[in-house]
Amino acid sequence: MGNLPPHSALLTDLYELTMAAAYFEDKLEANATFELFVRSLPAERSFLIAAGLEQALDFLEQLRFSDDEVQYLREQPAFHHISPKFFDYLKEFRFTGEVWAVAEGTPVFAEEPLLRVTAPIIAAQIVETFLLSTLTFQTMIASKAARIVSAAQGRRVIEFGSRRAHGPEAGVLAARAAYIGGCAGTSNVEAGRRFGVPVFGTLAHSFVMAYAKEEDAFRKFQQLFPERSVLIVDTYDTREAVEKIIENNMRPTAIRLDSGDLLELSVAARERLDEAGLRDTKIFASGDLDEYAITELVARGARIDAFGVGTALATSKDAPALGGVYKLVDIESGGVTSYRAKFSEDKATYPGRKQVFRFYDSDGNFQRDIIACADEGFDYDEQLLECVMQNGKRLHSSPDLSSIQQRAREQIERIPERCSRLRDAKPYPVTFSECLKKLLGDVRGRMKPRTGPATERSRVL
Amino acid sequence: MGNLPPHSALLTDLYELTMAAAYFEDKLEANATFELFVRSLPAERSFLIAAGLEQALDFLEQLRFSDDEVQYLREQPAFHHISPKFFDYLKEFRFTGEVWAVAEGTPVFAEEPLLRVTAPIIAAQIVETFLLSTLTFQTMIASKAARIVSAAQGRRVIEFGSRRAHGPEAGVLAARAAYIGGCAGTSNVEAGRRFGVPVFGTLAHSFVMAYAKEEDAFRKFQQLFPERSVLIVDTYDTREAVEKIIENNMRPTAIRLDSGDLLELSVAARERLDEAGLRDTKIFASGDLDEYAITELVARGARIDAFGVGTALATSKDAPALGGVYKLVDIESGGVTSYRAKFSEDKATYPGRKQVFRFYDSDGNFQRDIIACADEGFDYDEQLLECVMQNGKRLHSSPDLSSIQQRAREQIERIPERCSRLRDAKPYPVTFSECLKKLLGDVRGRMKPRTGPATERSRVL
Repeated sequence: MGNLPPHSALLTDLYELTMAAAYFEDKLEANATFELFVRSLPAERSFLIAAGLEQALDFLEQLRFSDDEVQYLREQPAFHHISPKFFDYLKEFRFTGEVWAVAEGTPVFAEEPLLRVTAPIIAAQIVETFLLSTLTFQTMIASKAARIVSAAQGRRVIEFGSRRAHGPEAGVLAARAAYIGGCAGTSNVEAGRRFGVPVFGTLAHSFVMAYAKEEDAFRKFQQLFPERSVLIVDTYDTREAVEKIIENNMRPTAIRLDSGDLLELSVAARERLDEAGLRDTKIFASGDLDEYAITELVARGARIDAFGVGTALATSKDAPALGGVYKLVDIESGGVTSYRAKFSEDKATYPGRKQVFRFYDSDGNFQRDIIACADEGFDYDEQLLECVMQNGKRLHSSPDLSSIQQRAREQIERIPERCSRLRDAKPYPVTFSECLKKLLGDVRGRMKPRTGPATERSRVL
Repeated sequence: MGNLPPHSALLTDLYELTMAAAYFEDKLEANATFELFVRSLPAERSFLIAAGLEQALDFLEQLRFSDDEVQYLREQPAFHHISPKFFDYLKEFRFTGEVWAVAEGTPVFAEEPLLRVTAPIIAAQIVETFLLSTLTFQTMIASKAARIVSAAQGRRVIEFGSRRAHGPEAGVLAARAAYIGGCAGTSNVEAGRRFGVPVFGTLAHSFVMAYAKEEDAFRKFQQLFPERSVLIVDTYDTREAVEKIIENNMRPTAIRLDSGDLLELSVAARERLDEAGLRDTKIFASGDLDEYAITELVARGARIDAFGVGTALATSKDAPALGGVYKLVDIESGGVTSYRAKFSEDKATYPGRKQVFRFYDSDGNFQRDIIACADEGFDYDEQLLECVMQNGKRLHSSPDLSSIQQRAREQIERIPERCSRLRDAKPYPVTFSECLKKLLGDVRGRMKPRTGPATERSRVL
C-alpha cells in the first residue's frame, strides 16, 4: 500500500516508551512474545471477524522515529534521566520481529489470539498501542457488518457512516472493515481509492433543496447519472415525490427512503411504481438502521432491495469497543524461554505461545476450537495462526480485499447456526488445552511463592 | 498546525462529488449556506462541549484535489457522463468560503449550530463529511470528558484510551478533545507532539512480567524515573506488591491500582503506605472506569488521588455517536437569498442563517438560549457564533489548547447545576425565536403548495 500516509512512531502510549527506555538502560536484550486477543465478546456478539492485519503489517514495516519525533521525546520531562544513547537507538530503530496472525476474514472467538509478535522486547512493546487500536477496531466493525449483512438476507448493504465515524480516518478504516464483513461497498471515496472498496453515492436532501422544485432536481440528476439515479424521496413528502417521478415519466434506477415508516412506505411505493410500469426501479432504504431494524423490516415483508447503514455500523454503536489486550507470554534470552502470565483478579492470562486449532464436523462446519501451546500435536482441521512476517518483512503480498470478503462469507456459513444467529446465540465451544492449563499452573506456582492458595487472594491488603 | 499530515480530498462521501458534478454541469454557481448541529442529545448527556474546530479549519485551508485523486474519480463509473471540465475544475479547487463557528470549549445544546459555512454550493457541499466527523467526534469526547472530570471532583483524570479508540488517529483526536473537556493529559504521545497535550505514562504489567521478581522491576523503574515512578501493583497480587514496596524501602511517586475492588484496595493501601511513612506516595486508579464508577468511588470514600480512564472516554462508550447533521439553510444567487428547509418526518430543519443568543442571570450564570435568525436584535449577553474564516482563510491564529480547556472549565461552571449534573439533569432552556418560526412557516408554505395541512402528512402514499 505505497500510497498510505506514513504513520508517526509516536502513535503509542507514553509508557511504551518509558518502558523501552528502561529496558534499554537495563540492557535487557531478550526477545519477548506478546499475544493480542479479545478477552470476552460483548453481550450482543457471538463471533468476531478478524480484520485490520494489513494495516498492522504496514505499520510494522514502515515504523521509523523521525528526528522531530525523537527530539520531542528527548524534551519530555519523563526522559530527563535517560542517556542520549537511547535516543540514538530510536533514530536507528526498525521493527525486526516475527509475526503470526489469523488471516483477515476468519471467524474468531474470545481469548483466541489474533496476532502474536516475537521481537526484541523494546520493539515488541512499543507497537502495542497501534496494533490494538488497528486490529480491534477493524475486527469490531467487520463483525458488526457481518451481523447486518446476515439480517439483510441477500439484499445489498452499503456502509454509509463516515460522517458519524470517530474522525475522518476512522471512517476510511470502518469502510474497509465493513466490506470485509460483507457490505457491498461504502460511501467513503478515500476507502475506494486506498483499498479498492466499491464506492456508492448519488444525491442528498441538499441537492433536492438546492432547486426550486423537487422534480427539477430529480430530472437534472437523472440526466447526468442515467445508470445510477437513486432519487431521495423524503426531502419534503415521500408519497408526493414518488408521484412526481411517475407524473414526469422519470425512470430512476432506484428511489431512496430515508425517514418515516420504511415498511409501509416501501410497500406503498412498490405498488405505485409497479402500477406505473417502473418495475425495474429498485427501492433503497436508510435511516438509523441496524441488524435488528433490518431483520424486522425483512420479516414483515418490506419491499426493500438494498439498505444503507451508517452510524450503527461505522461506530458499532451497540458495542463500540472490544476488550482487546496484548499480553506478554514469554521471554527468551540466551536460548532459554521463560514463560510469563498475569494473575490480576479477573484478568489472568495464559503463558506461552499459542495456536488455535479448529475442528470440523463431517459437513465441514466448525465444531470446536482448542487454544493450545503452539507446538502441541492435534489432529486438527485448521490452525488459525500463520507466520506472516519474519525479520520485520511480510512473507506474502497483500491479499485482494474482495478475496478477504469472499473468505469471510464462506467461513461465516460454517459457524453452526446456533452460534451465529443474531439473538440468543449459544457460545461456540472453545477450550484451553490441558497442556496450556498445566503451564499456567507451573508459572503461577513459580511466580507466587509467597502466596497461599488462590482462594485467599480475594482478601484485601 | 504545519506538522499535520495533509488530508486527502477524498475523505468524503461519493454523493458529495456526484452532486458537485451535477451542480457544475448545471452551472449552478450560487452561494449556499449550511449549518452543522446536533439534532438531539443522547439520553445520558445534558450539554455538549464544542471541540474540533481547529482541525475543521485546517482541513478547509489545506483542501486540494491531487492529480491522483482526480484521476481516481475520473475512472469511477459514476462519472462516465461527466465532462472533463469538471475534473479540471477539481484540480484548481480551493475552499474560498466564510465560516462562523462556536469557539471550542463552549457549552452547546441540541439544535444549536456549531458551525455555519457559506460558500459556492460545490465547496460548501463537499466538505460536509469531514466537518461532521471531525466536529461531532471531538465534541462527543470533550463532552464525555467533562462528565468524567466532574465526577472526579478535583482529582486529576488522565485519558488512557488510545488502544481502544477507533483506529490510531481517533486516539490522537480523542486525547485532544478529552483535554479540552478537562482531563489533565493523555497517554497518547502523538497528541502531545501534535497538539501540546500533556503526556503521562510509566509502566505496564508487561514490564513487571519481564523481570523475574516484581520488586526488581519496581526498583529498576524507580531508579530511572525517580520523579515519576507510578508503580503498577496488580500484576500478581496487589497487597503483596504494596508490601514489597514497603519492605524494600522504595518511595514511589504513586502506586497504580488496575483491577479488583478499587475502594477497598485504595483504603487498605493508603493505610499501609501511611504506616510505612509513605504519605507522599499517591494512589492512582484505573480499570474500566467511567463517570458513574468514579462518582461511587468518591462518594464511598476511596483514597484515590487520580484516575486513568480509557475505553469509556476515548470511545464515549455509552453514547458513541452524536446525531450531527449539516443542513442547507439558504441559497444566494444574484443578490437574492432563497431560504431552504427540509420537512422529512421527524427530521424537519429550520431555514435561514442562525445565531445562538445566550442570556445570563444576575450571577453571570447561563439562563437560557435563543436560536434565532442571524440578524435578529436581542439584548443578549453573548452570541455564540463568531466569524472565524473569510475567503477560505482563518481570521485568527489558533488559540492555545490550554486556554481552550480553561474556557471550557469556566463555562461549564456557569451551566445551572440542575442542567449539568450527571444524572437526571433537566433540559437547559433553548427556544427558537418567533422570527425563525415564522420563516419556517413561510418556507413550508412555499415549498409544499400541493400538500394539505401538516397533520395529513403521516398518511402513507
